[in-house]
Amino acid sequence: MNNNPFTEFESNVRSYCRVFPTQFTSASGLYLYDTEGNKYLDFLAGAGTLNYGHNHPIMKSALVEYLVDDGILHSLDLYTTAKMEFINAFQSLVLKPLNFNYKLQFVGPTGANSVESALKLARKITGRNRIVAFTGAFHGMSLGALSVSAKEEFDGLLPGMEVTRYPYEGFTTGVELELLEQLIEEPSGIAKPAAFIVETTQCEGGLNVASNQWLQKLSSIARKHDILLIIDDIQVGCGRTGSFFSFTRAGIESDIICLSKSLSGIGLPMALMLLKPEIDQWSPGEHNGTFRGNNLAFVTARVALEEYWKDVYFSNHVKETGKFLGEKLLELKQQFPTIIEDVRGIGLVQGLRFFDKSMASLVSKKAFESKIIIETCGAYDEVLKFLPPLIISKDILTEAISTIQGILSQVDKTLVTS
Amino acid sequence: MNNNPFTEFESNVRSYCRVFPTQFTSASGLYLYDTEGNKYLDFLAGAGTLNYGHNHPIMKSALVEYLVDDGILHSLDLYTTAKMEFINAFQSLVLKPLNFNYKLQFVGPTGANSVESALKLARKITGRNRIVAFTGAFHGMSLGALSVSAKEEFDGLLPGMEVTRYPYEGFTTGVELELLEQLIEEPSGIAKPAAFIVETTQCEGGLNVASNQWLQKLSSIARKHDILLIIDDIQVGCGRTGSFFSFTRAGIESDIICLSKSLSGIGLPMALMLLKPEIDQWSPGEHNGTFRGNNLAFVTARVALEEYWKDVYFSNHVKETGKFLGEKLLELKQQFPTIIEDVRGIGLVQGLRFFDKSMASLVSKKAFESKIIIETCGAYDEVLKFLPPLIISKDILTEAISTIQGILSQVDKTLVTS
Amino acid sequence: MNNNPFTEFESNVRSYCRVFPTQFTSASGLYLYDTEGNKYLDFLAGAGTLNYGHNHPIMKSALVEYLVDDGILHSLDLYTTAKMEFINAFQSLVLKPLNFNYKLQFVGPTGANSVESALKLARKITGRNRIVAFTGAFHGMSLGALSVSAKEEFDGLLPGMEVTRYPYEGFTTGVELELLEQLIEEPSGIAKPAAFIVETTQCEGGLNVASNQWLQKLSSIARKHDILLIIDDIQVGCGRTGSFFSFTRAGIESDIICLSKSLSGIGLPMALMLLKPEIDQWSPGEHNGTFRGNNLAFVTARVALEEYWKDVYFSNHVKETGKFLGEKLLELKQQFPTIIEDVRGIGLVQGLRFFDKSMASLVSKKAFESKIIIETCGAYDEVLKFLPPLIISKDILTEAISTIQGILSQVDKTLVTS
Amino acid sequence: MNNNPFTEFESNVRSYCRVFPTQFTSASGLYLYDTEGNKYLDFLAGAGTLNYGHNHPIMKSALVEYLVDDGILHSLDLYTTAKMEFINAFQSLVLKPLNFNYKLQFVGPTGANSVESALKLARKITGRNRIVAFTGAFHGMSLGALSVSAKEEFDGLLPGMEVTRYPYEGFTTGVELELLEQLIEEPSGIAKPAAFIVETTQCEGGLNVASNQWLQKLSSIARKHDILLIIDDIQVGCGRTGSFFSFTRAGIESDIICLSKSLSGIGLPMALMLLKPEIDQWSPGEHNGTFRGNNLAFVTARVALEEYWKDVYFSNHVKETGKFLGEKLLELKQQFPTIIEDVRGIGLVQGLRFFDKSMASLVSKKAFESKIIIETCGAYDEVLKFLPPLIISKDILTEAISTIQGILSQVDKTLVTS
Repeated sequence: MNNNPFTEFESNVRSYCRVFPTQFTSASGLYLYDTEGNKYLDFLAGAGTLNYGHNHPIMKSALVEYLVDDGILHSLDLYTTAKMEFINAFQSLVLKPLNFNYKLQFVGPTGANSVESALKLARKITGRNRIVAFTGAFHGMSLGALSVSAKEEFDGLLPGMEVTRYPYEGFTTGVELELLEQLIEEPSGIAKPAAFIVETTQCEGGLNVASNQWLQKLSSIARKHDILLIIDDIQVGCGRTGSFFSFTRAGIESDIICLSKSLSGIGLPMALMLLKPEIDQWSPGEHNGTFRGNNLAFVTARVALEEYWKDVYFSNHVKETGKFLGEKLLELKQQFPTIIEDVRGIGLVQGLRFFDKSMASLVSKKAFESKIIIETCGAYDEVLKFLPPLIISKDILTEAISTIQGILSQVDKTLVTS
Repeated sequence: MNNNPFTEFESNVRSYCRVFPTQFTSASGLYLYDTEGNKYLDFLAGAGTLNYGHNHPIMKSALVEYLVDDGILHSLDLYTTAKMEFINAFQSLVLKPLNFNYKLQFVGPTGANSVESALKLARKITGRNRIVAFTGAFHGMSLGALSVSAKEEFDGLLPGMEVTRYPYEGFTTGVELELLEQLIEEPSGIAKPAAFIVETTQCEGGLNVASNQWLQKLSSIARKHDILLIIDDIQVGCGRTGSFFSFTRAGIESDIICLSKSLSGIGLPMALMLLKPEIDQWSPGEHNGTFRGNNLAFVTARVALEEYWKDVYFSNHVKETGKFLGEKLLELKQQFPTIIEDVRGIGLVQGLRFFDKSMASLVSKKAFESKIIIETCGAYDEVLKFLPPLIISKDILTEAISTIQGILSQVDKTLVTS
Repeated sequence: MNNNPFTEFESNVRSYCRVFPTQFTSASGLYLYDTEGNKYLDFLAGAGTLNYGHNHPIMKSALVEYLVDDGILHSLDLYTTAKMEFINAFQSLVLKPLNFNYKLQFVGPTGANSVESALKLARKITGRNRIVAFTGAFHGMSLGALSVSAKEEFDGLLPGMEVTRYPYEGFTTGVELELLEQLIEEPSGIAKPAAFIVETTQCEGGLNVASNQWLQKLSSIARKHDILLIIDDIQVGCGRTGSFFSFTRAGIESDIICLSKSLSGIGLPMALMLLKPEIDQWSPGEHNGTFRGNNLAFVTARVALEEYWKDVYFSNHVKETGKFLGEKLLELKQQFPTIIEDVRGIGLVQGLRFFDKSMASLVSKKAFESKIIIETCGAYDEVLKFLPPLIISKDILTEAISTIQGILSQVDKTLVTS
Repeated sequence: MNNNPFTEFESNVRSYCRVFPTQFTSASGLYLYDTEGNKYLDFLAGAGTLNYGHNHPIMKSALVEYLVDDGILHSLDLYTTAKMEFINAFQSLVLKPLNFNYKLQFVGPTGANSVESALKLARKITGRNRIVAFTGAFHGMSLGALSVSAKEEFDGLLPGMEVTRYPYEGFTTGVELELLEQLIEEPSGIAKPAAFIVETTQCEGGLNVASNQWLQKLSSIARKHDILLIIDDIQVGCGRTGSFFSFTRAGIESDIICLSKSLSGIGLPMALMLLKPEIDQWSPGEHNGTFRGNNLAFVTARVALEEYWKDVYFSNHVKETGKFLGEKLLELKQQFPTIIEDVRGIGLVQGLRFFDKSMASLVSKKAFESKIIIETCGAYDEVLKFLPPLIISKDILTEAISTIQGILSQVDKTLVTS
């Protein structure tokens, strides 16, 4: 792919295309196809956007039908039929079964915009500026979202953003929350935070899973001190961990929930902020955006809910397949105890952390040669991240892991002989 | 529209739907249709997103065909055929004819994200934090973009954002730039800015048009002092003022250009940041986003360029129709000299400012009753903003203005008799 | 002065001692004496701290008497007799004659601390963060005071500090205030400031004198918009311009006045913040400091008022001598039109700005060789600053200027022949 | 004290005078005298400024002699004989015996100014903005120093100031440092700090003593990560804990040391910043101040060193008397177990924390009636703070504690009968 329009005219900021350097043209279900006729198993899944696979036929025909009927495409925040039908489906199929009471805010169609809106609202509601985020966090690339993400940056970002430790290995779990609470309760020179913003499982951060107990403690500190809890469910919501929301496993609720990625079902840009009715104190237009009415996405988002969330069938499938994936990865760890340090993650987002920090990228590269697209994550890209579409079967999973196993065997041999 | 899913479940932040309270279902060309069978002439045009009208038939069939062929929808920043074709079209139809040399950065699909990316890059390139924006500016609602927008907010936003005066009435034009330059040149206690961010015509700010001379002066200060110029062409780019970029009228270039809104042609979310090759110093992935590869938008964006920007026909149409609109509005001003204070704007974004600040909203309301959707702008919503799709004909424009004329006559009568 | 305790053990931050490199031991009236028996005419005057000269005999004997009587030296903010007597003298000799109604806040004994206190109070009273300062300003070196001073620094200082242009040459005087007011009145994206902080004449900034008209305009903007006016009279107060306060020439008042330097009369550390009773809304102890009760300074400060401010005699002396100084400097300018660009300043703080920016330092160096201590100021140290004790006579002034004249003649000759 | 010049003309910010409402005139050794002839035992000691008592006769006669000889009083940072003699004494009597290698920076004569200078230097040296301070900290009232102090303030202060927990009760000691180090070592989204600023014993914070082990750990984190350590020894330095510097008990050194309060010996304003030669990278004049050359203070400061720090006699006296004070306070605790919660502090700054948060103020009030001046400290003023001049004898200490005992007995009786 040298001297093509991409390398010549597209900004150097491009990244995935450097790791998976081929030109894709079409896609279906679990697979991507490139211009040279190759077929790739997609374990990247749009970084969590394609939970139901590519070009789901029912969503696709709903799109075509909507287009043919001259359905309105772009509506700002005008009332449209497509939006109404989505709202109704979301209420009846997602919120009502959980006895959840949330209002829906249609934000600009990116996860980051949902986070930006959450930060603004938390500050407005509480009259406080400080937001506490966690090490390893990733909430987006706009300057507000970036200010609560774990980057080694500092100057020039939003004042008042602070980071405490996320409960992954290496620290007595829970002590960081105890310290956080003390700093709030005592006269500490630190203003009370407006909100905590947290992912229940950090994906970009390296597949770190917060325990139910830790999440309950965080939630209880928030409630006790009148601090808003913002859960960023952009990557692990929409069923990725087996339930629609990732935090229900801990029996907690959240004042604000950020959703995006797989929300539209077929990969179209869409984002949502759920907020408790009592904090819906926005003035009209106080947060807006040109593309917050992307009606094509409303259509497929509704179809996705109707197809997959009417009963527990799909949820159970994800849980079982996730359990199966975990077992398979553990087997790999047992087979390659000198290479694999850890199996990490939850549901259908799990991964392997290697002792050698460069190993994950190497395996990803070799997997691509074997026509599997699988990315890495973690602060040092040290984790190989299995993020298949949720519709995957155990058989295909087995096959893919067998390919990875082959790659690891090769690597192992090289290591032994070297 | 009482007690419906919208009022019950959608956040209070919704706004346009309060001004135009009906439920829309379909759209075509210049018109929107609601569930009760009403047909509305659309002078809102997706706040500048629908320059080519709703559901343009050629774009629409390109979409349907792409869907039927299982074209890839969501691709992060992987190489795809749809993206390549868009890049080629943009280079050959937009940049090459102007002898412009820019690289394309596909950002998250909102104008605000393009602005956020521009702010980050300007800081990175220059190693400076300060960005100078202008009174009346609107660049978006995420916290970075908001920090350079004219809102009466302050605390908690990005440090280093400053605002000086935009050249609308009431101040000796140019003196503010003279002062700005002096503060840069003298030992002033103000660090040199990283960038200026400016709209050549402010739409949200009330249809304020910067003169060519003013833009040249700003550009020359930027060049002289090694400050980046960022032009936010999100609303007035893509042909709105008669040329593809709004700033070419002043004979200047810009280091960074933000595009979005009508870029995709049919209203699908898409945004772009153009940057001079010499400042393309991003590390891979330094600014990313889940939906920066919205291929449906790439498809229609390419079609829009091929349909409308292959020759000067469309450009001339916009210029002529814009001139005609200006003349018509001046006639209204002459007819209602006690009501209309000013005709403002450029090309096909022009408007009427009223002496009575509440008048614009009143006229908008009555226009809606007459099935014309037209919004207001300005810090006090004091300007009625004519923003039709660019494909509009003089005849329909004449008809619409005649309706507005009728409304103003009614109002005038009321004023006289009261 | 090589390899002595100073160069070996004192921080590199020391500065005046590099320009006037000798070791001083004693001082009296207008003169300093060094260890080698040299006598220097002191036109530095403690950077404005020694308006009444060194070791004024009456103040000195008051000190000795107080010490012998075991007068309390250090009192925090306890009530002491020395403080009471100072308060009474300040009220009756300074404030009452002007019909001024101010309360006295004894701050930490540095001018900067007075400024810090003013910034804090302005923010507290108004609930706003933004403070507007001016180019060329110098208010002190602590981080708050530095944030409103004209240094080319930026990041990491106090948020909300902004700088607009001070009315020295090169800009249509008054336009910057017009622009400032517009940015306040219009919806500009800039929060209303809490306060303006200004010097009526900038000394460090290069002897820039604000006109009465400009000060009146600034004061009227402040009053109209409910913004506090803070006048930093640290260097030009205490009689330097001919009246006790420097701003009375413009017929204005100030909400807050910062005093220090010559306040104690004999050079002892002391600072004061005067504040209108209606804004004296501090909680007890909200601004404090260990040395705010430096009773030796209270004693001499009272004596200074009693000796010099009981009638207009001293004030008239300063005015006349200042006028005389100005005339003498103008004569120099006429004599050396190719060397001297400008005579600047007011009262007994006036100076010469040279065309050649390095000239002032050269003249200062040569003056030191001739046993006159005179410093430079301005952003580029381009101004030679005559700042004699106010008690100086015309005769000695004439003599000193004659020495400077000799130096300039030498320089002139060198220039001509080179 | 109603309707006097103080209540009429002094700002409401005054505080100690409200607690000890009488007018003082003279002072000697351990005692203050008021205008009504009352004699008070001074356990406030100028908040730590009068370690050698009031009006020490040898310092006083040195002052008088210096004045009579027309010694230079105010010298900015010119070389003076008084300063040279102080530098020599400080080097030979304080630094050399400890094998310490520091340069002396004479800052504006307040502790806060020393802290401001330290913060600026730390940022300059490291190129980083973030400073980590601790809960309960007090470093001064100027805006920089305030930004690292434990106040429930937030907005508008210096960006980048952060607070972690000081090791007083209620938290597993040391864990907070472990967490701090992890946040530095891991990719955490937190920039590496420029410096830690810490008091080895917090006085205003409630007499919290950091253990040697904790101080060593902090010092080792600083060294390991190239972070500067700033020790604020303003209140507990100059012998208060038994050694000249408070931190030598932990066997550590500090990159920067802030000194003030008792430095001048007799209560005159003076402050010093000690800095390691390798970080003395100031430009000349980069931090300055009008009163950094307060020569009267240099004279007494030198005398104080010569009188008290030539041998270990005084140091041993403080240690023994401190031990005795601690034992006496423990006896009180044993006698009043339902009133006194805790004996806190170190050396000759120790105190009683009461179960009832209002008790300390009550006891202070009653002590004043018995002619003992003793203040309270802690976030809730819950600690009675014994801070006598260091020259106190065991006899007088015994007498004073006996008075306090009497007050507590009274209180106890009231409690029992109520």
